Amino acid sequence: MSASSEAIPVETLRWRGGQLELIDQRALPDRLEYVSCTNAAEVAEAIRSMVVRGAPAIGCAAAFGIALEARRQQDRTPREFETAMEAAFRTLAASRPTAVNLFWALERMRGVLAANQDPKSAAAKLAEAALALFLADVETNRAIGRAGAAMVPDGARVLTHCNTGALATAGHGTALGVIRSARDAGKRVSVIASETRPYLQGARLTAWEMIQEKIPVTLITDSMAGHLMSLGRIDLVLVGADRIAANGDVANKIGTYTLAVLAERHRIPFYVAAPLSSIDISSADGSAIPIEERSASEVTGYAGMRWAPEGVNVANPAFDITPAELVSGLFTEKGAVTRPDRRKIRALFPG
Amino acid sequence: MSASSEAIPVETLRWRGGQLELIDQRALPDRLEYVSCTNAAEVAEAIRSMVVRGAPAIGCAAAFGIALEARRQQDRTPREFETAMEAAFRTLAASRPTAVNLFWALERMRGVLAANQDPKSAAAKLAEAALALFLADVETNRAIGRAGAAMVPDGARVLTHCNTGALATAGHGTALGVIRSARDAGKRVSVIASETRPYLQGARLTAWEMIQEKIPVTLITDSMAGHLMSLGRIDLVLVGADRIAANGDVANKIGTYTLAVLAERHRIPFYVAAPLSSIDISSADGSAIPIEERSASEVTGYAGMRWAPEGVNVANPAFDITPAELVSGLFTEKGAVTRPDRRKIRALFPG
Repeated sequence: MSASSEAIPVETLRWRGGQLELIDQRALPDRLEYVSCTNAAEVAEAIRSMVVRGAPAIGCAAAFGIALEARRQQDRTPREFETAMEAAFRTLAASRPTAVNLFWALERMRGVLAANQDPKSAAAKLAEAALALFLADVETNRAIGRAGAAMVPDGARVLTHCNTGALATAGHGTALGVIRSARDAGKRVSVIASETRPYLQGARLTAWEMIQEKIPVTLITDSMAGHLMSLGRIDLVLVGADRIAANGDVANKIGTYTLAVLAERHRIPFYVAAPLSSIDISSADGSAIPIEERSASEVTGYAGMRWAPEGVNVANPAFDITPAELVSGLFTEKGAVTRPDRRKIRALFPG
Repeated sequence: MSASSEAIPVETLRWRGGQLELIDQRALPDRLEYVSCTNAAEVAEAIRSMVVRGAPAIGCAAAFGIALEARRQQDRTPREFETAMEAAFRTLAASRPTAVNLFWALERMRGVLAANQDPKSAAAKLAEAALALFLADVETNRAIGRAGAAMVPDGARVLTHCNTGALATAGHGTALGVIRSARDAGKRVSVIASETRPYLQGARLTAWEMIQEKIPVTLITDSMAGHLMSLGRIDLVLVGADRIAANGDVANKIGTYTLAVLAERHRIPFYVAAPLSSIDISSADGSAIPIEERSASEVTGYAGMRWAPEGVNVANPAFDITPAELVSGLFTEKGAVTRPDRRKIRALFPG
């Protein structure tokens, strides 16, 4: 499967049946390289080590990881197959804790597995299901894009955080998808990308994607957002989500909460773009969402260069919680929800 | 001149009469190296290139730069001497625009020069004046430290930004001086140091100074402050200043404004520690303070490593303005001023 380069210029995940190819996002923008995975453990390691990142992309990768493992194990007895697949689900579920799309995708795959006892037919159905999930993600992002683009004024200078583009999804993107859709709808938009320490997804990935798309982009450090708002140089903030609680609280890349507080002070809209698969009704509010703590080495330097002295303590929470009260609007494939709250979020899931 | 290592463990500036030795702060914490300057142009370049940084340290360095140039030119005719010194003042004044201590120190040196027509005696007096200014800065910092330490509760977890320690001053430090003084007064204090992109003064310099002093320090990225406040893990914010306007607005390292906004939301005190020489009565408010825009290369990477793609636009304002309304207290050598405003700041300058 390979989508046309026109529709999806950045092929974050390429499904080759016997293997999953992932852009190595650690190497961007220096090098556009692919990593190949042929089983669930390799996909889990690619997620853990951030070869692939971004909540929807992680979900797709995990689904393909299950499909790969099923194909690899399809000649086993049903009991051996079941044991191997159980291990594969556990390994993938343990790869990263915060983005709920991972667990959502695994749950979908579990449903397919449960409905197919025979290893060979299960493997075929799981491969179909993973591909369907992948293709649906692109359509979902386009629908999010349409919903959000309607809320982006012509000429808007949009501050975004981390990377929520094609690289974070199966294609098009969530928050960056809204920007793409607004541009495609004829609006002039420009992007202010916060670099997003420690992992620099803004500086490396968002800047790169926007340059590919010829959308004007200005890179800032995370500490500059407040200053630019105080000068009137930002019209709205637009971010993605790793998990949205039932009350509308948003877990997203560390630094998102700060941008929401700043936006409120400056009366700038703060929008979140995410698929329904990022909403976790079982998390009552943000305090129920586990926040991943990552390695100290991400903070003491970057890519093998160390600049902090030996002996320093480090905190490295990868996400923070933005309370729903600070969210001006939520863009999903079902449209825009202004001032999201428990009732409005519940209404997105009929039945 | 060399202060005892007990009083000033970090000798940011060493005055040798014929030369000024500066710790090369670009090399810390990897290497503790000194750069020697023998004339005003070399000192100006050291300030511009951030061999030496921190508002009070810049002021001291500039004063020594004038003293060095006067010594170098002292065998000239009075007219030649005057011309050379005028050029030296211009060169130093053009080195960096925001920290007002630079202009304050140059103004003091101009006064000394004006009172001494003979080149040789002017050179001697300027050297004396620079040294006096340097020694007074340490005493000033100790007085700031005493004033501020009284406001720091036992057990306080103090968030600080950039570097305001011995490295930023003639010794002891402003905001870090308050922390040193609180510790010396028997209080248990711990420091959360924001790394302070793009130049990483927090990660490199504050972390290093605190480790030297055996004060517990935890390094975070700038984007993590809001999250830690939301978890109740920060008791107060304590920063320095590059220039304080007549109404109490504070220009300080980019990112300071964001910390003040976050502190207000979380009802955490936000304190500024600075000498009177950082107060610029001629700037009516923050909008009158020039904000230095530095090189794009500081944002697109670090120390020769580039991680942002070619072709990206960059904003790199080195400072921002925190409005006085967000400042809980100002610590100067004349004591603590709670909720500083135009009237209270005016009262710091009698006559």
